[in-house]
Amino acid sequence: MRKVAVIGAGQTRFSGAQEKSLSELFAEAAFDALADANLQPRDVQALFVGNALGDFSEGQGMTPAFIADYIGAWNVPANRYDGACASASMAVRDAFLLVASGVYDIVIAGGVERAASLGTPLATRTFAMFSDSRYEFPAGMTFPGVFALLAHRYAARYGLPIEKLKEQMAQVSVQSYKHGMFNPKAHLRKSVTIPDVLKSFTVATPIQLHDCCPFSDGAAALIIASEDKARVLSPKPVFIAGAGQASSGPLASQGEYLPRLKAREMASKQAYAMAGVTPGDIDVCELHDCFSIASLIAAEGLGFFDYGKAGEAWMKGEADIGGKVAINPSGGLKSKGHPIGATGAAQVYEIVRQLRGEVESERQVPDAKIGLTDTLGGDGGTMVSMVFKRGW
Amino acid sequence: MRKVAVIGAGQTRFSGAQEKSLSELFAEAAFDALADANLQPRDVQALFVGNALGDFSEGQGMTPAFIADYIGAWNVPANRYDGACASASMAVRDAFLLVASGVYDIVIAGGVERAASLGTPLATRTFAMFSDSRYEFPAGMTFPGVFALLAHRYAARYGLPIEKLKEQMAQVSVQSYKHGMFNPKAHLRKSVTIPDVLKSFTVATPIQLHDCCPFSDGAAALIIASEDKARVLSPKPVFIAGAGQASSGPLASQGEYLPRLKAREMASKQAYAMAGVTPGDIDVCELHDCFSIASLIAAEGLGFFDYGKAGEAWMKGEADIGGKVAINPSGGLKSKGHPIGATGAAQVYEIVRQLRGEVESERQVPDAKIGLTDTLGGDGGTMVSMVFKRGW
Repeated sequence: MRKVAVIGAGQTRFSGAQEKSLSELFAEAAFDALADANLQPRDVQALFVGNALGDFSEGQGMTPAFIADYIGAWNVPANRYDGACASASMAVRDAFLLVASGVYDIVIAGGVERAASLGTPLATRTFAMFSDSRYEFPAGMTFPGVFALLAHRYAARYGLPIEKLKEQMAQVSVQSYKHGMFNPKAHLRKSVTIPDVLKSFTVATPIQLHDCCPFSDGAAALIIASEDKARVLSPKPVFIAGAGQASSGPLASQGEYLPRLKAREMASKQAYAMAGVTPGDIDVCELHDCFSIASLIAAEGLGFFDYGKAGEAWMKGEADIGGKVAINPSGGLKSKGHPIGATGAAQVYEIVRQLRGEVESERQVPDAKIGLTDTLGGDGGTMVSMVFKRGW
Repeated sequence: MRKVAVIGAGQTRFSGAQEKSLSELFAEAAFDALADANLQPRDVQALFVGNALGDFSEGQGMTPAFIADYIGAWNVPANRYDGACASASMAVRDAFLLVASGVYDIVIAGGVERAASLGTPLATRTFAMFSDSRYEFPAGMTFPGVFALLAHRYAARYGLPIEKLKEQMAQVSVQSYKHGMFNPKAHLRKSVTIPDVLKSFTVATPIQLHDCCPFSDGAAALIIASEDKARVLSPKPVFIAGAGQASSGPLASQGEYLPRLKAREMASKQAYAMAGVTPGDIDVCELHDCFSIASLIAAEGLGFFDYGKAGEAWMKGEADIGGKVAINPSGGLKSKGHPIGATGAAQVYEIVRQLRGEVESERQVPDAKIGLTDTLGGDGGTMVSMVFKRGW
């Protein structure tokens, strides 16, 4: 297996409903990434695109075939990835594997979604299709409900008073919004305090509005290249040092792991092992904070903090820049936004730019060398972890 | 790159609307394939599933995550492929590439769809999402219309009187139904004559009802393994000798290629070159006959017959068992049926069983050594070709 690097990264601003088509949105991110890598569309040998909701937002299936044509990557193999919110991370991981193995030298991988264009009530209902359609959705479960249940389970499991957990979750949001303020590509840019979060609209107890990410429109794209191409094309290649992916069925299949998610723990172990690193080596991490409780569960599942203790870590600043590990300096899904099928690629975009030292100074993790992405699809059905290393 | 073989093949009967869920249907095919390979679900390292319409037929996205759990392939990476009708062929091709490169040793790849369960009018409308949503669908195009236009273009391009083309197309159907009569897993099993086809309901001139494939429910699955695993596990491994994939945008992007499809010609050239064979070496071919005209276009694009001459070949029996190349001895999409996301895997299922000499004697291609699959997604947006060789 060859070494593989990200040599170009592009992202649109994430936003509410807007009028660009999926092809136009992805093109914006793709051209940014290609310019970053000094490449033309015709240099790309394959196109992998995460897109979960295109059939519903735009009546378009098989989206990448049309995107490839639209951006001028004519006739390349063009694959669509649907792993719900983890779609784009699957696309990046497969690009990594197929470049590592020598099948391709240069692949463009990313994701695009017009989730905000669906309108939030319809998006929530449509998106519930990524839980189990046999046992979960018919019971009335949508994702705020899933994570509200996980929050209650978390509080009960670790003997945490629910009011204390709510405060910890609020601190997760406060930190994310703080960083998002300095991210010009973030969807929701505002400053909130713990009391602001606690008094915001109750979505599904104990989750308040400011504990939830928005549905966003947006796209992100990466140029994935073999080491020899990377050394020629990029002054600052960021290497994909490890990648893992695992699946699970409905939440009930997690068994005794709740409120932990088994597939995450498996995927991250694979990624750490392949990269030869431990959680303590990670300088910066973009993890899947679709809800604040999801951040706590993720940070523990990834091995950063003891089970039941992540909230305390956030309260003490250990999950922030300058702490044990800088989590979601992009603003995360909560502030940066959550265009479902694009989210994993946007996490990679942030890690690549952090490792290059290129983000706004207010949210740059000083001298970041090793980064991690963690992406959750559905209620744990698909999990992808990837480790990145600065390569110069 | 290592050699890669198919060591197990399973398929459900293809049918009209039925009550099994996507997971149950796929499980039936998967367990057949696993038994054929003497393997258990826990032996599988990844699951790749073509499924284009699950969100609509069952309100289930990210289907493979739930299927992996359901069949007991717990926690493996589970990827969904949407390339419209070519979805499962993309899944098989990626399984081939990732086993060839040593990432996995054993992958289960296939597809599942409940297209008939949607009901034909809704399926036709929903399925039109796999043409271009910007330029084609808004003009009222559905797939019968696309292929009707291609038929007229074909007749005009090659100076063929439309009545003569209609007769040739009818002969394509007659041959497919003849073989499907002997395929116990076929959806539509009946005998038709050229006059039957010509006097059947006009769907979109010049296409009659019997020129069209049905929407079907069904699943097919293959066990894809590295050569060393294959040699141990299977007395009759069938090797994947070559694979190609290409994309195009809307039909308008084919430019001067119409009524030819550029992506097919590129994908099949890749597959032939990788396998070191020419069209003349192919003994048996399963090609994408969603409409009879699609068979003629495919057979020419794959290099079996001169452009404009495929109809004559069918009339003379050159596309049948005993002719130049045996095309669609399974009954093809027309008789065997067309469960969109499963079709490519069912083509591979047929080729594998043909090369093993295991199909019903009435439709067995004698001493078949080399086979080809050709799968078309949308109106040419995704094309996949694969060459298979008998390996014992």
